[in-house]
Amino acid sequence: MRELMIHLNENSPKYKQIYHSIRSLIENKELQPNTKLPSIRQLAEILYVSRNTTLVAYEQLLAEGYIRSEQKRGYFVETFESIDIHTPTLHAEKSISEERKIKVDFRAGSVDQHAFPIKAWRKCVNEVLKEDIVYMYGEQQGDRLLREKIANYLLQSRGIRTSEDSIVIGSSTQQLLMHLSILLKNKYSSIAVENPGYDGARTVFQLCGFQINPIEVRKKGLCMKQLEKIESKLVYITPSHQFPTGVTLPIAERLQLLNWAHSQNGYIIEDDYDSEFRYQQQPIPALLSIQQEARVIYISTFSKAFLPSIRLSYMVLPSELLDQYNQQFATFEQTASSIHQRTMARFMERGHWDSHIRKMRATYKRKMHVLVSSLHLAFGKVIRLIGTQSGLYILIQLQSSVGEEILIQQALEQGVKVYPTSNLYIGYKPEFSILKLGFSNLSIEEIQLGVQLLKKAWT
Amino acid sequence: MRELMIHLNENSPKYKQIYHSIRSLIENKELQPNTKLPSIRQLAEILYVSRNTTLVAYEQLLAEGYIRSEQKRGYFVETFESIDIHTPTLHAEKSISEERKIKVDFRAGSVDQHAFPIKAWRKCVNEVLKEDIVYMYGEQQGDRLLREKIANYLLQSRGIRTSEDSIVIGSSTQQLLMHLSILLKNKYSSIAVENPGYDGARTVFQLCGFQINPIEVRKKGLCMKQLEKIESKLVYITPSHQFPTGVTLPIAERLQLLNWAHSQNGYIIEDDYDSEFRYQQQPIPALLSIQQEARVIYISTFSKAFLPSIRLSYMVLPSELLDQYNQQFATFEQTASSIHQRTMARFMERGHWDSHIRKMRATYKRKMHVLVSSLHLAFGKVIRLIGTQSGLYILIQLQSSVGEEILIQQALEQGVKVYPTSNLYIGYKPEFSILKLGFSNLSIEEIQLGVQLLKKAWT
Repeated sequence: MRELMIHLNENSPKYKQIYHSIRSLIENKELQPNTKLPSIRQLAEILYVSRNTTLVAYEQLLAEGYIRSEQKRGYFVETFESIDIHTPTLHAEKSISEERKIKVDFRAGSVDQHAFPIKAWRKCVNEVLKEDIVYMYGEQQGDRLLREKIANYLLQSRGIRTSEDSIVIGSSTQQLLMHLSILLKNKYSSIAVENPGYDGARTVFQLCGFQINPIEVRKKGLCMKQLEKIESKLVYITPSHQFPTGVTLPIAERLQLLNWAHSQNGYIIEDDYDSEFRYQQQPIPALLSIQQEARVIYISTFSKAFLPSIRLSYMVLPSELLDQYNQQFATFEQTASSIHQRTMARFMERGHWDSHIRKMRATYKRKMHVLVSSLHLAFGKVIRLIGTQSGLYILIQLQSSVGEEILIQQALEQGVKVYPTSNLYIGYKPEFSILKLGFSNLSIEEIQLGVQLLKKAWT
Repeated sequence: MRELMIHLNENSPKYKQIYHSIRSLIENKELQPNTKLPSIRQLAEILYVSRNTTLVAYEQLLAEGYIRSEQKRGYFVETFESIDIHTPTLHAEKSISEERKIKVDFRAGSVDQHAFPIKAWRKCVNEVLKEDIVYMYGEQQGDRLLREKIANYLLQSRGIRTSEDSIVIGSSTQQLLMHLSILLKNKYSSIAVENPGYDGARTVFQLCGFQINPIEVRKKGLCMKQLEKIESKLVYITPSHQFPTGVTLPIAERLQLLNWAHSQNGYIIEDDYDSEFRYQQQPIPALLSIQQEARVIYISTFSKAFLPSIRLSYMVLPSELLDQYNQQFATFEQTASSIHQRTMARFMERGHWDSHIRKMRATYKRKMHVLVSSLHLAFGKVIRLIGTQSGLYILIQLQSSVGEEILIQQALEQGVKVYPTSNLYIGYKPEFSILKLGFSNLSIEEIQLGVQLLKKAWT
């Protein structure tokens, strides 16, 4: 442990000076990631200040994600690649008059625009605009080059062995699910879905005429016992980061699920929408990667990890379904932009994709940490946080009988938008309301401001 | 009429010298569009050559679209904005080994890449990449700015009065038809389609569970008598440029059709896929523009008039359906790229769209003319040409009992790809095979080469 060079003067509160000094040492890399910091007592002694002063400074740094606290080991400088500091700005949808007063919008589904590699992307765009593909309809399953890059990426990041021939690109997960529904409807009439679960997928299945069998999500994810009792031979599941509860399906349940699909001659639709963002440990392997000839249709998207605006999703089809797909959809044109597809292929080819994901993982990890610590600090035990290990949103459950709509309205009156989850439940609602908070496009300052305003709204 | 300054020497055939001289006078704008040319007899007298020599020179210029012939009035310089001369190149899909020998590909569905305003487009792209929308999911019905521009355009070009609120943008006509099918399936179980007609639309309706009622297309388009006899209350139709026959539905039949929809409480799905390219007279008004409160769902696309690769289509929904759509598809994300949508909006805002369409109309008109004259010249009365007034392809019918597949194979052996139409017919086939030739991405030289090779293949 090195001594911290901090000079205090009398002009401003001492905890603020300590906070700013340590923060700038971290930002300037004079304090490297994972460096152990002096304890609260030690730092108080070094600087001749009270322990309360150093405690407050550390708490502020913790809340902002500059440092982390490890039980019985003390305080450490947090890992992150870049610091994206900017002043709080109003969130985008500001044209609608009701939204004028919105100071912080915890909407999930946008991405961090300050960390986006716009130059590299623009360079790839301008190159692609010189290619012939711009002037033609694209390949039916999607751009071959991009499918190759996706196959590579799936092997490296998710352990999935596949080839470009089995990949079908589409303009959204819902669009792919719609094609898939039409395909599966020939043989199956009902589908099991997670409860709570992604309403956007459920709606597609319903609109395509499937009977819906909701299966409870418990501590270990989808309840296998319930699944085994019902007649559905299809299941739609988000095993790596259950939407919305964040649960990861353990390996034992994964094997059980794969065997279920085999014995039923059914299929598992594995929606792996944001597996890139797992902050505590390595992602566990995708269902599709566990078993040879698994009866799994794997679906993922570039919307969470990259940009929702380019509308790029993809699925990996088992060979039996692939043949049927190519037959039934023979007259269909590809729905995703060939320009975006080729641009993404070039972007991946040049290694930009990998470094972008690494960078975003660090950035989002820090934001998640700030959100979680700020909420703990503001609400203490009154709040339960769900799904804090991965992804780009968390759920919060206030131990209060106030209804979801009222909580949302109270937050809105303070200028904060938070989102309901009751639409994700079928047939029952949790005892206490659960709200959804996305953080990907918010700055550290906005997250902190948002939590302060929520505290004002709800206490 | 001014005298043509043409100096002939003895070194090369005289008709070639005359041809080249007139051609370069036209290209250099020394002969302005619509200038009347001397008659064949007059020119022969002026230049002291035989009438046969001037005839051959004029025929060549006619075939290449530099001049046009008007009955009883004589020869005139053709109208076109720019001349895009480049040496014949192999068509794009050349990676596949079978395609290596393809010299000319009459594939419909690509656009002229030499006339494309790449700079203006790139400028709009780079501006849009600075906007916030890049980092978010787009509006559900599509980018509001683009919907405003489309509403303007529909009023000016198609006489349609609508507003951005009634427009829904999607990533392809098929994707929109699929959503529409799901919507209409609540109330209707069968749909009438044109026979022959667009198989891509028919497949969507079939996959979504509709019973298909094929209605014959005759000289005046869809046979109204047949339509009135069946039970379907829905009809899918391409009234402005019937796919594939090119027939325009006359105004009397249009009114009849609109009344039919009202009396049936049904809907007309009007697919107006390439109404921009009408070469002889002004486009006749869209069905939707004729009647207040018409029971018409209007669909169009940017794929033909602009770029197929950006995947942008749109539909105008009657208010009753719009409410149902927004209710049923509430959890659906937009499927078209918001980047492309906003770029197109900026492109239209700055007037690039209008001038692009004007330019392309002139370019395609010339190509159509060259294709038609070359085919007439090469095949005479053995060939019947269908749909030569508009659009980006024509149909040809050889007065020969040789089957479609064999004709395609014979052409392929000469390095030319032409396309079948039998897949567009339901339940019957025309007496003589009909083939489809697209020309939008071919140069004048490629078109001429293609026709020469077809002559070699088939005679």
